[in-house]
Formats: sequence, C-alpha cells, structure tokens
Amino acid sequence: MKRKQTLLFKKKPYVVSAYSIVGEKEGEGPLNKWFDDCIRDNTYGETTWEKSESKMLKTAITEVIRRAGKDKSEIGAMLSGDLLNQLMSSSFMARDLHIPFLGMYGACSTMTESLMLGSVLTDGCYSDNVIVGASSHYCTAERQFRLPLEHGNQRPPSAQWTATASGAMLLSREGGEISDYMDKEGKVKRQKHVRVECGTIGKVIDAGVKDANQMGSAMAPAAVDTILNHLQDTNRDIDYYDAVLTGDLGFIGKDIVKDLLTDAGLSPAALAKVYDDCGAMIYTPKQDVHSGGSGCGCSASVFSGYIYKKMKKGKLHRALIISTGALLSTISPFQGESIPGIAHAIALEAE
Amino acid sequence: MKRKQTLLFKKKPYVVSAYSIVGEKEGEGPLNKWFDDCIRDNTYGETTWEKSESKMLKTAITEVIRRAGKDKSEIGAMLSGDLLNQLMSSSFMARDLHIPFLGMYGACSTMTESLMLGSVLTDGCYSDNVIVGASSHYCTAERQFRLPLEHGNQRPPSAQWTATASGAMLLSREGGEISDYMDKEGKVKRQKHVRVECGTIGKVIDAGVKDANQMGSAMAPAAVDTILNHLQDTNRDIDYYDAVLTGDLGFIGKDIVKDLLTDAGLSPAALAKVYDDCGAMIYTPKQDVHSGGSGCGCSASVFSGYIYKKMKKGKLHRALIISTGALLSTISPFQGESIPGIAHAIALEAE
Repeated sequence: MKRKQTLLFKKKPYVVSAYSIVGEKEGEGPLNKWFDDCIRDNTYGETTWEKSESKMLKTAITEVIRRAGKDKSEIGAMLSGDLLNQLMSSSFMARDLHIPFLGMYGACSTMTESLMLGSVLTDGCYSDNVIVGASSHYCTAERQFRLPLEHGNQRPPSAQWTATASGAMLLSREGGEISDYMDKEGKVKRQKHVRVECGTIGKVIDAGVKDANQMGSAMAPAAVDTILNHLQDTNRDIDYYDAVLTGDLGFIGKDIVKDLLTDAGLSPAALAKVYDDCGAMIYTPKQDVHSGGSGCGCSASVFSGYIYKKMKKGKLHRALIISTGALLSTISPFQGESIPGIAHAIALEAE
Repeated sequence: MKRKQTLLFKKKPYVVSAYSIVGEKEGEGPLNKWFDDCIRDNTYGETTWEKSESKMLKTAITEVIRRAGKDKSEIGAMLSGDLLNQLMSSSFMARDLHIPFLGMYGACSTMTESLMLGSVLTDGCYSDNVIVGASSHYCTAERQFRLPLEHGNQRPPSAQWTATASGAMLLSREGGEISDYMDKEGKVKRQKHVRVECGTIGKVIDAGVKDANQMGSAMAPAAVDTILNHLQDTNRDIDYYDAVLTGDLGFIGKDIVKDLLTDAGLSPAALAKVYDDCGAMIYTPKQDVHSGGSGCGCSASVFSGYIYKKMKKGKLHRALIISTGALLSTISPFQGESIPGIAHAIALEAE
C-alpha cells in the first residue's frame, strides 16, 4: 500500500500577512526589492549574534501581527524554529511575546514544517490565527556548526552561506479585506488572497553524504522524495505549479534535484520553467557565497517576501514551496555519521 | 479579552498503544513495574551515548507500532524530540523508519507538545495514525549541558538527574479491540480505552532564574501558568482529574507548584490528593539523584508507562499530564540570560 504523505486543507487557510527581514549581504542580493526590511548592521543593535537573530525573528513576528491588524491576544499559537541549539532564537523571542508557543526543529526545513502544522491548526478550527516563522544568522550558524568567524577559515567551493534572514506568516481562517495596488504602468489592480491548499510531510532520507560542506547533495534526495510523493499523492504534473521552489540546496543541490527529477521521468522543459531554489536565488555568484545560500531564514524570507508578494500581485497563481533540512548535529559528524535530510512541501494558491 | 489556550479534540483520539523503556537507575526506582522495558546496560549495545538514546527511542516507537497491530505504512506522521542539539536522537531514529517525520523541540515539554500536535493531526482527520515520542539519556545530557561524565564533577543539591528513558504513544482515530486482564485477585476485568480529550498550549514564562542547577524553580511558573489557564479555559476544578502530573520539576519544583497553586486559590487538600510530579516519582531520594528526575524521557516514560497502564486498567479515569521544559540553550547562560520555561497540558480520559 502506498502511504499518502499529503494533507489536504479543505478550508484553505489564508496567509493574511507575511514579513521578511534580511541582513546586509542578502539585502545586496538579487531579491533585494522583495524583502520588507534589509538591516544595515548584522548585529541589529544587540550584543551577541544569537540575540541579533532572535530580534530579527521577533521583528518579523510582531510585524505580521501588526500588518494583519490583529492583536497579540487573538493569536492562538505561534510555531517557529531556527538552527541554534535548543532553538535559542525562537525560545527567547517567544519569551517576550506571551503567545502560546510550539517549538519546531527541522533544521532548514523549519519554515514549511511550521506552515504544515500551523495550517493544520487553522484548517482544523483549533485556532483562528496562527503565526509561523523561522530564522537563521550567518554568524550564529558559523560559530555553532563550523568555526568562530574570528578563526577566518577558508570555505570550500561546495560550502553554502547561511542567510542572515527571518520570515514569518500569519495564517487565519478568515481572509480579511483585500487592498488595491498600483502596477508599473500606473494601473490600479486588485491584490489576491494567498491560501494554503495542501502539504506533504517529508520522510528522513540519508544518501550517505558525510561532508558537512556538501549540504546541497545531502538534502537533494529528500527534496526529490518529497516532490515525487507530493505529485503522486495529488496526481499532478510539476507544471501544475507556476513555481516550485526548494529551500536551500544552493547551486550544487539544485542541479542534483533537476537531474534526479529528470531521471524520475519529469520533463526537463517543465522543470526549467518552474523549478528554482531559494539558496540559488538569494545571492549572485559574484557575492562570494560559493555554492549559494542556506539556513532556515533563506527559504523563510524568500517565501515570505518574494513568493508571497508575487502571489499577492497575481504574478504567481500556484506555488509549491519545499524547505529542505540537513539533520546533522554538531556531534554526529564526529561519530562518523552521514547527514540525514528532510523536506516538507506546502502548496500555496492565489485567488 | 482572555485568550483561550485550550484545544478541544471533538473526536477524542485514542491512544491505542504506548511503550516505555528506561535505563538501569530508573529500573531500580519505585515505578519499575510500570515500565515496559528496563535495560541493564545504559549503552544499549551502542558505541556512543547519543546512539544509545536514539536506539531507545526507536525501540519505543517500533514497539508501539507492533503492539497496535499496525504496519509502518499505516502511520501518517511521527512527531518526536529530545534534548540533544539538532534532535540527534529523533533525527537518526527517523532515518531508519521511513515514516513522515516532524521534529519537535520543547526541551522536556516535548512529550505533551508532540501529543498536542499529534492529537490535532488525528482529531482533525489529517492522519489516521500518528506516533508521538520523546527521549533523554543521562550521559548525553550531562555531556551536552554540563560536563562530560569523565570529569566527575559534584552536583549541587538542587540539581536533577536526567532520566535515561524514552516513551512513545500511537494515536489513532479508531480505538480498536480491547482486551481483558486479570487483576490481583484473579478476576477477569475489561481494559479501558484511553483517549485524548483536550490540550492547553503553554506560553514561554521566564521567572528570572539564572542557575542551570535550579531547573525546577525555572520551570514551575510555566507549569502553574498552563495549569491555571487550562482550568480557566475548561471551567474545571483541579480535582476534576484523578491525577495531575507535571513533567520533571523534581522535589523543589513540585513544592513551588503546590505553593503557587495554593496562592492562586486552589484547595491544598485537592492538590495533595491529585497532584504529583514525574521527576519526584521516578526515583527514590535514596538513589542519590538530589532533587529528582528530569529530561524529556522522564515524563514520556511515566506517561507512557505508569499513567497509561493505570488508565487502561480503569484505576485512573481522568489525568492531566503537563510536560515541563526549560528552554535554556548551551550558550544562553554564558550570555547572562535567565532560563525561560514552558509547559503544555494534555487531558486524558479512560472510558
């Protein structure tokens, strides 16, 4: 019997607001105009990198509440996570907000994991309003997973750059009012509602990669497994979507996904048209990031910024977003372990 | 406006099976007979403590599947977590099982966090069968949060002993068949169904405690906040339940909870009758554990062993279980931070 991994959200929860905040380097990248806030100083006025990251997540979350015109007391639950040991950014953010909190850990897959369970809570009528979010910071991740920045170590070409970024969305059972916007030619256009249609929970897949500087290769098989299961469960072709975006596979991982999906029988032309990766989009190769971006905040900010805004404007109708996580720990590589990967997919619709 | 933190599960998901596995010290404690498996050697045949812990969690999860008479392919989702950085025990366990996986982090509150979201997935008809679990191991936790065991450091009297334990439950929309059992007097009795009735999502509460050897004091205010919100949301008195069990506050934290709940107007007599703490139950003071037990596995094993079996036999009808977590990280104390606490409550019914 084929196991169905896909959950259908009958009431299609509305993403009533979204907010993305990124660091200096990300603000200089090609997606600059899609982010809501680009900070100039990656300390964000704090005394430690961990507190800077936590503050970025807090900004994203307080902003989605404000933009949705809600009060904190109307939020039934807040689901978020980050890469730091014991979810330091999320836990300390949640301490200040006094909103019922559920901590998620899926490494860089956290944004779609939170969206999955946040949608279930909203769609199943358990909470009227739910916040989902994720964050990462280059300086906290380097210190924790690799070496302190002060060490000035050299990074191999396959290494990815952890994005200093945070993204959040507010899910609601009610879509609320929709506003108009003016397009480039000065025409007044109606914005769309963005809704969560379904989600595919990923399985942990380990392809045996042991090099912690080869995250794209480690996560790509999990992304492919989730995409194929999603298409099979929903009986859709990949070009059912206008955009299919993996989280943070970077340049190397993105190529592997294209190869593996082509091997699995998907049309290379359709893939070329709809498929991309947030880690390959957030920086230009000239920014010296080697194999592209990574980190929970990479896909969280691209989904909450680029994808959400394109959908609001009706420039994308259906998007499949797949945050991808490498579940290695700070200890497991020293114990000779390979890197398990995971990916969760969420289908968004503009209407 | 008072925010409701409590989710009502209309279909009351069934806990169709549960399994608890504990280490040597826990097996010598007063709850010995309630655990399904007490291992004799805390390495559990593995070469590292992390792998031992992961294997214990895997045993618990494969056993709940077997006992429920299910096949792996019937499980829609598995939600679990542990204390290790990047959920090493859960991630590596999930790698071997190929079941859609969602990683949870709530420190020692993970068991009821997983039960909360697992119940939502089951009750909301998103998955027919969902596994929830959590684990901890004395040797992994000491190494990560305090000092390597080889250091032989002395522990202050307020310190708690992280339980080497794991617990898991399988939630299902169908209760399945119920079997008979023979009581002490040789009478054949009918077992009960154990069902999840509602759950209260906790907020992060920080009382300003900065001493990582005072976990009970750090978590007690969060437990009290969740219990009071639960009682207010459900309009119940504490003695509506036959048993109200916090997760791992230990001897010190348990006394603080009793004091704070009495201050809040709850009857000391009712509290004395129904309230206890898994961390205060799992060891005897003679076992040299100072202030009692702690760790995700402490409440996970007591709920999956003691509480579940008592309910199956009809010796408890209504239980409120509240796993409690201290959300400090391995870095936050060095940055001068106090310890945020969290607690989620789940109401179980036997019928």
